[in-house]
Amino acid sequence: MPVTLREVAERAGVSIRTVSNVVNDFHQVAPATRARVQRAVDELGYRPNTAARNLRSGRSGLIALVLPELDVPYFAELTRAVIEQAAAAGYTVVVDQTDGDPVRERELVMRGSRAAMFDGMIFNPLALGDGDLRDRPSSTPVVLLGERVVHGGLDHIMIDNVGAAELATRHLIDLGRRRIAAIGDQIDETRQTGRLRTLGYRAALRSASRKVIKELIRPTEFFHRADGAAAMADLLALPEPPDAVFCYNDLLALGALRTILGRGLRVPEDIALVGFDDIEDGRYSTPSLTTISPNKNEIAKNAVQLLLNRLDGDSSVPAEISAEYTLEIRESTLGRPM
Amino acid sequence: MPVTLREVAERAGVSIRTVSNVVNDFHQVAPATRARVQRAVDELGYRPNTAARNLRSGRSGLIALVLPELDVPYFAELTRAVIEQAAAAGYTVVVDQTDGDPVRERELVMRGSRAAMFDGMIFNPLALGDGDLRDRPSSTPVVLLGERVVHGGLDHIMIDNVGAAELATRHLIDLGRRRIAAIGDQIDETRQTGRLRTLGYRAALRSASRKVIKELIRPTEFFHRADGAAAMADLLALPEPPDAVFCYNDLLALGALRTILGRGLRVPEDIALVGFDDIEDGRYSTPSLTTISPNKNEIAKNAVQLLLNRLDGDSSVPAEISAEYTLEIRESTLGRPM
Repeated sequence: MPVTLREVAERAGVSIRTVSNVVNDFHQVAPATRARVQRAVDELGYRPNTAARNLRSGRSGLIALVLPELDVPYFAELTRAVIEQAAAAGYTVVVDQTDGDPVRERELVMRGSRAAMFDGMIFNPLALGDGDLRDRPSSTPVVLLGERVVHGGLDHIMIDNVGAAELATRHLIDLGRRRIAAIGDQIDETRQTGRLRTLGYRAALRSASRKVIKELIRPTEFFHRADGAAAMADLLALPEPPDAVFCYNDLLALGALRTILGRGLRVPEDIALVGFDDIEDGRYSTPSLTTISPNKNEIAKNAVQLLLNRLDGDSSVPAEISAEYTLEIRESTLGRPM
Repeated sequence: MPVTLREVAERAGVSIRTVSNVVNDFHQVAPATRARVQRAVDELGYRPNTAARNLRSGRSGLIALVLPELDVPYFAELTRAVIEQAAAAGYTVVVDQTDGDPVRERELVMRGSRAAMFDGMIFNPLALGDGDLRDRPSSTPVVLLGERVVHGGLDHIMIDNVGAAELATRHLIDLGRRRIAAIGDQIDETRQTGRLRTLGYRAALRSASRKVIKELIRPTEFFHRADGAAAMADLLALPEPPDAVFCYNDLLALGALRTILGRGLRVPEDIALVGFDDIEDGRYSTPSLTTISPNKNEIAKNAVQLLLNRLDGDSSVPAEISAEYTLEIRESTLGRPM
């Protein structure tokens, strides 16, 4: 038989309510009383499990953060920010990675049985689309991140990818570069990020009356260093290689940088590079990386706040928030100070 | 009133056991039946929460992974490996970061009320020590990672830091370097990693009959890029700067690399560099980073396996496992191929 709150209360010589307050981490218990209760809890081996607490409050205190890849620095940095924001509100974050696997994404977001473990979810889908989420049976609040889903009927925080990519490309045009390549286009239509950034890249070239040269737009399967290194090798093998490259994230740019320097070429003298994400790696590379810097703290703060609002019963129409970003100009386009 | 399993069963026209099987994700339910049950679950808004499941099985299906910093690539890569190993065993991993804060660490590992949310915990402490963990009241199984606690009476997976640091330093001696510095010594006695690696560094110098020069051993507060960059600047300011540096992790080495290249010096021609961790960043830097490579997949696999054994009732004496490692020799010591 499991030990009950009543038995703990008797052992500690306090009321059941006081035991409950200690067990639930409420703060209005005097330290000495708290210690006495904790001693009774330990001696009796009382296990005040989530089960009992869920049944009472209907809440688990857990927020799920579902991301494609935890070991991609952009997501690792975003995760830190979400954990900090959630902790400030008394929530624990459960982090899960999907690797963009549609089955895994569906399992996590769609199924009532799984979702019920969490009070809410912050979800950055890669594979699931608008239609998938409209059919969602679960009533657990979800805040969407990223650009995969645009009409999901859910709170959504995104980045203006077209505008940001246009800004990055325009910077290379303004520096006088003539053959500007792009790494990270995506053919798979479930991968919206690459498609949107290509739209911005094209828009910048067009508004500067530049021709869009198809062979300078390189698709990649993933946004990892290895993809950037390989795509850059392809670009360098062209009869007329580029003198600038806009990479759709910093990992691609760091991979491309490795390839360029490995050939004995210089950045930015021979080839200028711009990335996207502003991860710490790019601030310490040599040359340091010019990049689009989305405000990750703002994204995390808004995501947690929207979720808490829904948990508090907010039933207004879904919010659509566009996160701030800046262009951080560093050595990979400006050169190094003498 | 919450919807009951019985109501779902009646709506779906199946037994309560079948509903329970679907809700608990057991696999012996025919797809058509599963769909029918799911429909009934959705229509009625049945919420088969963790509470009910916990009460039945006594398990939450959650493993906590408690690490100092999620956005440190070594931990991000280890997290990926732990999630994969746990998923294969049907467990979901809850990731939490402590930032090495003793209060936060104590809260997570010591308190019964919190620990009961998880079936078990994989814990890499930075601040808590042997004594702290011996007093642990909770009976939740814990597997320890790292070197902070060595006699905690718990399963423990560690790296032979002294041996690995000796190997790294010996490599620099073998290359003929004369003034070999070390970055990452730690004065705070709760930070064992730095202390142990300094022991290995000293041992290698001693066995090569080299003098240990105190000013060449640089302490750092953290193991971040910024610490490595600053420590390297201090070393370069010495009347006689080093011609090689063993950095106690790759982030320190990448920070040091940034400082060295920023001064117009060459790696390894002027200064050779060795790191520790073998994170992906170091494979793509220019030059690529020679480093100690701990077998992260093996660490993750052992950690999950030890935890599952305890959950299955294994009560044998705590295991002490020393993880494998190798020295990966790359351009930062060998130079780049011509």
